[in-house]
Amino acid sequence: MTLRGWTLPQTATGRSAIVAPPPWHYSGEIIAVDFTASPEAAAALLPSGMVPVPEGTASVVFADWCSASDHDPRVLADPAVGQYREAYVVLHVIRGDKKVGRVPFIWVDSELSLLRGQIQGFPKKLGQIAMTRPVDIGRGGVRRQTGSTFSAHATSHGRRVLTASVTLDGSSDRLPRAATLPLVHTRLFPAIDRPEPAVHELQLGAIANFECGTVHTGSATLALGATEYEEIEALGPVSVGRGYVFSMAFSVTGGKVEPA
Amino acid sequence: MTLRGWTLPQTATGRSAIVAPPPWHYSGEIIAVDFTASPEAAAALLPSGMVPVPEGTASVVFADWCSASDHDPRVLADPAVGQYREAYVVLHVIRGDKKVGRVPFIWVDSELSLLRGQIQGFPKKLGQIAMTRPVDIGRGGVRRQTGSTFSAHATSHGRRVLTASVTLDGSSDRLPRAATLPLVHTRLFPAIDRPEPAVHELQLGAIANFECGTVHTGSATLALGATEYEEIEALGPVSVGRGYVFSMAFSVTGGKVEPA
Amino acid sequence: MTLRGWTLPQTATGRSAIVAPPPWHYSGEIIAVDFTASPEAAAALLPSGMVPVPEGTASVVFADWCSASDHDPRVLADPAVGQYREAYVVLHVIRGDKKVGRVPFIWVDSELSLLRGQIQGFPKKLGQIAMTRPVDIGRGGVRRQTGSTFSAHATSHGRRVLTASVTLDGSSDRLPRAATLPLVHTRLFPAIDRPEPAVHELQLGAIANFECGTVHTGSATLALGATEYEEIEALGPVSVGRGYVFSMAFSVTGGKVEPA
Amino acid sequence: MTLRGWTLPQTATGRSAIVAPPPWHYSGEIIAVDFTASPEAAAALLPSGMVPVPEGTASVVFADWCSASDHDPRVLADPAVGQYREAYVVLHVIRGDKKVGRVPFIWVDSELSLLRGQIQGFPKKLGQIAMTRPVDIGRGGVRRQTGSTFSAHATSHGRRVLTASVTLDGSSDRLPRAATLPLVHTRLFPAIDRPEPAVHELQLGAIANFECGTVHTGSATLALGATEYEEIEALGPVSVGRGYVFSMAFSVTGGKVEPA
Repeated sequence: MTLRGWTLPQTATGRSAIVAPPPWHYSGEIIAVDFTASPEAAAALLPSGMVPVPEGTASVVFADWCSASDHDPRVLADPAVGQYREAYVVLHVIRGDKKVGRVPFIWVDSELSLLRGQIQGFPKKLGQIAMTRPVDIGRGGVRRQTGSTFSAHATSHGRRVLTASVTLDGSSDRLPRAATLPLVHTRLFPAIDRPEPAVHELQLGAIANFECGTVHTGSATLALGATEYEEIEALGPVSVGRGYVFSMAFSVTGGKVEPA
Repeated sequence: MTLRGWTLPQTATGRSAIVAPPPWHYSGEIIAVDFTASPEAAAALLPSGMVPVPEGTASVVFADWCSASDHDPRVLADPAVGQYREAYVVLHVIRGDKKVGRVPFIWVDSELSLLRGQIQGFPKKLGQIAMTRPVDIGRGGVRRQTGSTFSAHATSHGRRVLTASVTLDGSSDRLPRAATLPLVHTRLFPAIDRPEPAVHELQLGAIANFECGTVHTGSATLALGATEYEEIEALGPVSVGRGYVFSMAFSVTGGKVEPA
Repeated sequence: MTLRGWTLPQTATGRSAIVAPPPWHYSGEIIAVDFTASPEAAAALLPSGMVPVPEGTASVVFADWCSASDHDPRVLADPAVGQYREAYVVLHVIRGDKKVGRVPFIWVDSELSLLRGQIQGFPKKLGQIAMTRPVDIGRGGVRRQTGSTFSAHATSHGRRVLTASVTLDGSSDRLPRAATLPLVHTRLFPAIDRPEPAVHELQLGAIANFECGTVHTGSATLALGATEYEEIEALGPVSVGRGYVFSMAFSVTGGKVEPA
Repeated sequence: MTLRGWTLPQTATGRSAIVAPPPWHYSGEIIAVDFTASPEAAAALLPSGMVPVPEGTASVVFADWCSASDHDPRVLADPAVGQYREAYVVLHVIRGDKKVGRVPFIWVDSELSLLRGQIQGFPKKLGQIAMTRPVDIGRGGVRRQTGSTFSAHATSHGRRVLTASVTLDGSSDRLPRAATLPLVHTRLFPAIDRPEPAVHELQLGAIANFECGTVHTGSATLALGATEYEEIEALGPVSVGRGYVFSMAFSVTGGKVEPA
């Protein structure tokens, strides 16, 4: 019979597929840290046609997401499916005459997000992500206020790859670069019967409904760690910049592709 | 040498111990559902000296906690250690001439909380807990507002033991019972060289700094599930009551013990 | 620069990619149970061109794998990467004039295997898999001998989807169908800029070096469970057949594709 | 009513308790590495009455266990409950006029083993443990034969604490020290209403039915890692000794206690 499903597994109903097609909606809590990366190490992570910005800036972003899917109400309804955490590096990059963002490494603690990400060209791996979430009452947590320290870390393959903190000292009218640079991804799906990939193309997400809450800023710390399976530690950091704590939301309505 | 540590592992510094002594502080987001339990099943979970309230009421509570420890700053600082989720049943109980709460089953996704709980007499097991967390912007999640549905579930031993939802329709001036009944626990630690336990006593936590945010209320659903390792499904529910979504905070400064 | 990597993430060295191309090698311990499936439910899981065998037979297979990759020595060297467990259903199917196997549902506890499987067309999801492993000494486990019971179960989305056991009563000269039917998969990778998939084709793995140890057989039990995210429980089982416990090994050297 | 259960949770039937009393039976696959520890660091982990052996030897042990419990058949029957992995350090110690073993740090991936261990005085924490398991057929894994490398590692709090390997070059008639030194533990359970512990005593397990398979030996590597929550890295290693791969089985029938 005709099987349905945007991804595997396909069935007669389509309701077993892991991922439904966009639109997808995201509302998240962000902890981000700017840093300067080794220019050589950054360049070694970029496809042809992209070069690091001269100032060598980059960002690490931790996100605690709630997500929804127009074609699958279970994503919003089931917190075990729609909610997840991820951590990634964004290199600030020149492509043609534009500044864009490029994500060479990203870890996520969700199957849905792993595969939804791979479809968009996010190079997602599974990892364990921890992030301070603020509290409004009591002494068990930290508030979104001056002097509070927000911590975040990510582990991949049993080794710490990212450890960051932001100690709030004010707020900002400007959005951090990590939130505003359009991301250019590489969609890559291998063939099984020949060496050339079945899919290899650049992808620029179609973003809508962007919203951002108050951007709390502060001094930051950042450490990058090594594993046998990633090449993040070569990026440095050469120096650590400002940190940011804020809420962010947007929708992905699809994407545009170009030859890789 | 003299080793230090309130719990194992003990070392010369004491900083490897899993749990530091109270005071402990908690700030959490709660999803709770009242229900009526089978009176026989509830009675079969109570120690002598406690009987179910005549109306047979009970509650299921899901909590997403941030926690802190006066003697271990790492708990507040490291979100992977201080933050965790748990789910439990509270039977509403008569003990002597007082209404108290009794927790026959509780699951938690944190090592620290598992052992900190066992020390207090919470019968904690490891489980996987999911809870809707509200968002303030965007379409990726649900708001704390009328019409929103908050979902929560808990899995133990690969089987769903609790599945609940609350669809908000208002707020309340009164705190839910699940938040106000003082809990009476049984501290139990076996001996290894004789059949009688080494520790077997009732424990009433010393609670301070209690705070509660707005109590959002709504209609609720609740299903209890069976595993080979728990006896929760016999409780019913006979009927499902109201649901609650609120923030709660308190401190545990120690406890009082009585013979079991 | 030119980035390398058979899958994402691509880097200058290629060593961050999750999956390296075949050949891949597998050595595993298998617990399998034959059953008869509801013919309608089985048909609803098959693509056009495949129909259930008239006798309606199917198998559930649990596998505890060690795996290796000719182009990535880390897979063999690191037990956290190369070793994993999976569980799947194989429908026995007629395609043209041949009996083949079709896997409508499969769960695995490994990122590498999840993505390596999706590339081959295995509809892999993450799950938690438990399997009795035999012991040779002591009283802590069961032996591979008459009277021993081997148990296995799989959990997806916090719910038990497969629960099986085999109580050994002999051995067999014949390999179980689940080990010998060639599998026909569907490779499916969505496009992001149009509704039609970017890749949608049938895939038949190129298998080499097949080996099988002694096939221990026995009476079996099997239960299929429901989740909100799978459609396995409709398969029944209508009746449960024999069970099998054995070692199996093979290599995947690539694959052949056909239009879907 | 009278509640039953050797540990929490107690119920009328007793079948919800996490741990049933001994006898407990263990059959396991072991990867062990001898090393020389910093004498000062080792001494800082020992209670009064114990000193490191003059030669400063110690061992790291990884174990993949199957376990059973005479009073709870579910432990043997359910691989998700009875099977688990752990990793620990054994310091070789003089106590009075005897050589004994002392375990300052141990990580385990099982709730049952965590609590069963705490009752015996093993200072168990949760961790992620990976170990090469040998295969008998195929090319997906390694054999128990000369030239094969067995790898093992343990992660605690998202950081690698133990990384070891053994490359087999022969076998031995003698059991490794890690398998033969009687272990002296500290049972420690805090009071909640006073600073002094409720239970604080030394414990020597009553061991029966000890069995050991062929002891494969080889050259070894070992690295100890740091976390914010353990103090293992100070042990060194000063030098790394031989490695061992073998099967081991025994029963715990109870224990003897002495004042701490």
